[in-house]
Amino acid sequence: MSNVKIAIIYHSKYGHTKAQAEAVYAGVAAVEGVEARLLTTEEAIAAIDSLDSCHAMIFGSPTYMGNMSADMKKFIEASVTKWGKRTWQDKIAGGFTNSANFFGDKFNALVGLMTFAMQQGMIWVGINDLAGSNERNALKTAQGPGPDALNRVSASIGPIACSFEVKAPDTPPKGDIETARNYGRRIAEITKRFNR
Amino acid sequence: MSNVKIAIIYHSKYGHTKAQAEAVYAGVAAVEGVEARLLTTEEAIAAIDSLDSCHAMIFGSPTYMGNMSADMKKFIEASVTKWGKRTWQDKIAGGFTNSANFFGDKFNALVGLMTFAMQQGMIWVGINDLAGSNERNALKTAQGPGPDALNRVSASIGPIACSFEVKAPDTPPKGDIETARNYGRRIAEITKRFNR
Amino acid sequence: MSNVKIAIIYHSKYGHTKAQAEAVYAGVAAVEGVEARLLTTEEAIAAIDSLDSCHAMIFGSPTYMGNMSADMKKFIEASVTKWGKRTWQDKIAGGFTNSANFFGDKFNALVGLMTFAMQQGMIWVGINDLAGSNERNALKTAQGPGPDALNRVSASIGPIACSFEVKAPDTPPKGDIETARNYGRRIAEITKRFNR
Amino acid sequence: MSNVKIAIIYHSKYGHTKAQAEAVYAGVAAVEGVEARLLTTEEAIAAIDSLDSCHAMIFGSPTYMGNMSADMKKFIEASVTKWGKRTWQDKIAGGFTNSANFFGDKFNALVGLMTFAMQQGMIWVGINDLAGSNERNALKTAQGPGPDALNRVSASIGPIACSFEVKAPDTPPKGDIETARNYGRRIAEITKRFNR
Repeated sequence: MSNVKIAIIYHSKYGHTKAQAEAVYAGVAAVEGVEARLLTTEEAIAAIDSLDSCHAMIFGSPTYMGNMSADMKKFIEASVTKWGKRTWQDKIAGGFTNSANFFGDKFNALVGLMTFAMQQGMIWVGINDLAGSNERNALKTAQGPGPDALNRVSASIGPIACSFEVKAPDTPPKGDIETARNYGRRIAEITKRFNR
Repeated sequence: MSNVKIAIIYHSKYGHTKAQAEAVYAGVAAVEGVEARLLTTEEAIAAIDSLDSCHAMIFGSPTYMGNMSADMKKFIEASVTKWGKRTWQDKIAGGFTNSANFFGDKFNALVGLMTFAMQQGMIWVGINDLAGSNERNALKTAQGPGPDALNRVSASIGPIACSFEVKAPDTPPKGDIETARNYGRRIAEITKRFNR
Repeated sequence: MSNVKIAIIYHSKYGHTKAQAEAVYAGVAAVEGVEARLLTTEEAIAAIDSLDSCHAMIFGSPTYMGNMSADMKKFIEASVTKWGKRTWQDKIAGGFTNSANFFGDKFNALVGLMTFAMQQGMIWVGINDLAGSNERNALKTAQGPGPDALNRVSASIGPIACSFEVKAPDTPPKGDIETARNYGRRIAEITKRFNR
Repeated sequence: MSNVKIAIIYHSKYGHTKAQAEAVYAGVAAVEGVEARLLTTEEAIAAIDSLDSCHAMIFGSPTYMGNMSADMKKFIEASVTKWGKRTWQDKIAGGFTNSANFFGDKFNALVGLMTFAMQQGMIWVGINDLAGSNERNALKTAQGPGPDALNRVSASIGPIACSFEVKAPDTPPKGDIETARNYGRRIAEITKRFNR
């Protein structure tokens, strides 16, 4: 079988979402028989027709003021040319986001990415790491799981990174990066299974 | 290959969502090599372990006061026993809803069903009929597509039926029923492809 | 009492959301003792500090691909300077949207506007016209309320206009325009009551 | 002026949301000239007409499987008798939720409560404590704010408590309880201002 192609399309201003995107990319690229591409939203807009040959796309955006960034939305609007002809139909899709807190309405940013994928007729794959799955003892305290935990915040639609007021690359922390990598691997394996 | 099994689990009080569920069921059952089951949420709670062998589940709820019904939510809460062990992980999922208007915040009900599926590690498949796709001329008027149109309301996450103040079985109208049937077929074909 | 000031801030590409914004503006301006301003998002970004003296803001955006427009999001990101100091806290807020269909995931665009207002500490006022309230008979048919009906789609968070593939100013239709006007009046009256 | 009346209506299974509700109640009751009532959803259903005389209602639910509980939804469905006559129109509304993690799709539960309030024509007031506002130094570390911080998770639509796998009353922790109390006070003050 020819290779499965997966594009990771992200916007990042301060480097946090970029670090998360690189971790997703690494997870995708680690799966045999998968070709991974990493593009900023600006690059993706310029090369939008080249995405037609992908089997999956993973969208990453910071959460600013409770929603995906305007730059990510620009990419989404550029993709309207694919909508009427169902060009991206049945491709696998996923998404991730980062912000400087635990919650900050990031669910809303992920629902926005998922809704976009649904409008394109794509198929959405969420996260599979249970909350703090490698740090179970932390769940027994009021403090909750720490920065090394997988899926520290208990996200489901897609990976969530929490960077607080720490500059990249010191953050997102190890657990968030590993969660992103696991997600890339998960999307790659599901895409292979769907296209075998 | 052994048959692919798909369960449609729904709650209905006045018969509208039931009619929609039967149409989804008919669409699923029409696909060769697929075994379809239709259960109320009450039946599904009683037989919840039997769902473990399904390859896909499609959830249907009326929208009451801008959200899925309490009865549908009861089923979701009963499924918590599947969460920690990831029993339903990687199953295909979908959802649909009905209410007595065009909009009525039904998006919120569908996001609720999708979020539940994501918490279970399932894979979400949305609708693929473009808005009013069999009634394109209707889109050129202020009235919009009529009750015979496919995807009359332009939904994406799952089929939406609009029953207004008309009693079942005179409603949901023809277009909404056909949209539900198409969705059942779509889920069945994607489930087969994913499990071949 | 000095006048209550209300700004309507909108983005529009094809004129539909602009027509809706003008109707909201007319509804606000018709209330005695209220000073109304109508600004595009571009104008609002350039004059963002001038919004600090408003008692209420109403945000309007088209829904593109299931979310508010990138241009509206740019305004929201520009308002981050007001977030940390709680400059806009306790102001009244509202929102509206238009797209070329009945549904089209416009709920998601409105939740995005509402979430932004919540992040700023504002107070959200939704719509109050019941579904098709001036056209009750239409609710007894499969066709549903027509383009003259108030709140044709049964929205709650804010007014929804449905322009289909008809060019402005022939659309949004009469009912949607009147719904927008009623909403402007409602926001103005509640803002007065809150600031008397 | 006669007293302003505010009801807190909650569902709780393990006591966490109850503790949060009691803190909201304490915050409301501490404001002069305000009469506070605390009711379970079951009590509220039984005495639903008595809520008509309230000036504000605050709804609290645990988040189970990414949404409000079925028991909270039952109360919402019982309130449909208030919808058509706009009985609860222009009352102030708010909401809060608790779950055993930082995120867990609690945004979805809050949007559900807010959507319900919008369907009833109510006016929504969110939280006003900035993220970790009493523990700013914690934001400079990968760990983020601890259990003593106000608005530890950076919520906006309403207070969020994180109880992890600790039994009530040892949790929700101090910061979450204080956040809930502040919210009750905020709702009470805004309700007074709106009704003076």
